[in-house]
Amino acid sequence: MRHFEDFKVGEVTEIGPVSVSEEEIVEFASRYDPQPFHIDPEAAQASPFGGLIASGWHTTALFMGMFVRAILLDSASLGSPGVEEIRWTAPVRPGDKLTGRVTVTDVQPSERNANRGTVFTTSEVFNQDGTLVMSLNARGFFARREG
Amino acid sequence: MRHFEDFKVGEVTEIGPVSVSEEEIVEFASRYDPQPFHIDPEAAQASPFGGLIASGWHTTALFMGMFVRAILLDSASLGSPGVEEIRWTAPVRPGDKLTGRVTVTDVQPSERNANRGTVFTTSEVFNQDGTLVMSLNARGFFARREG
Repeated sequence: MRHFEDFKVGEVTEIGPVSVSEEEIVEFASRYDPQPFHIDPEAAQASPFGGLIASGWHTTALFMGMFVRAILLDSASLGSPGVEEIRWTAPVRPGDKLTGRVTVTDVQPSERNANRGTVFTTSEVFNQDGTLVMSLNARGFFARREG
Repeated sequence: MRHFEDFKVGEVTEIGPVSVSEEEIVEFASRYDPQPFHIDPEAAQASPFGGLIASGWHTTALFMGMFVRAILLDSASLGSPGVEEIRWTAPVRPGDKLTGRVTVTDVQPSERNANRGTVFTTSEVFNQDGTLVMSLNARGFFARREG
């Protein structure tokens, strides 16, 4: 199990893949982002996107699923205080197969709690054509091994 | 229908409420964020959170549902390029009833496209006790009325 000390600046981890269907795009957005271009194929066709696209929040959720299964589940994760600079750079469409790349950009031991530290990451998500569809900078708390 | 010109800096809109059940917390997280403190009540009890909590991405999705239904569905929304500074400031737990407050912080006509502009917002989400559980700064594209 990975602890705070095991994350090294510059380390890169490939995550995924995960595929997304039209059914899942519509199901997610019907509940959480019911804009016509996320839930109605005909309205989406007439929109600037030219077809159904996934909610940006669905893309973050799909990213998180890959990140958790590749990294967090085998770690001493203690949650996250926040995220910076989410960029949705290209639409995610039905049938897309996404992969991700997570780069550790900084590690900081907690000043208040000797038992934990913060790991800073920059993550990128690509579709099957290699197009960047999302990027974000995140932070996560991890327990220290000696904690 | 609200267009770009209808958003005024300083305008505040109350959104919600939305309630979240243990079943929905576990369902969302099982797919998108299967960390033990989101999907396993017993493991969550033993975690620093002292019980099951919603994925932060579930909280963003719940916020988006309120935001879309209160504001975006009756607007000329053209999607969003990104979000800044998501902060998960307190846990969201089963049975919580969330509300939100959206404040328009800036409006900028597009320099490249005379038919649209960007609206900047700061949003806060509170639980039934008035505790801030999340904040974020977002941007959205909207068509101009004369576009």
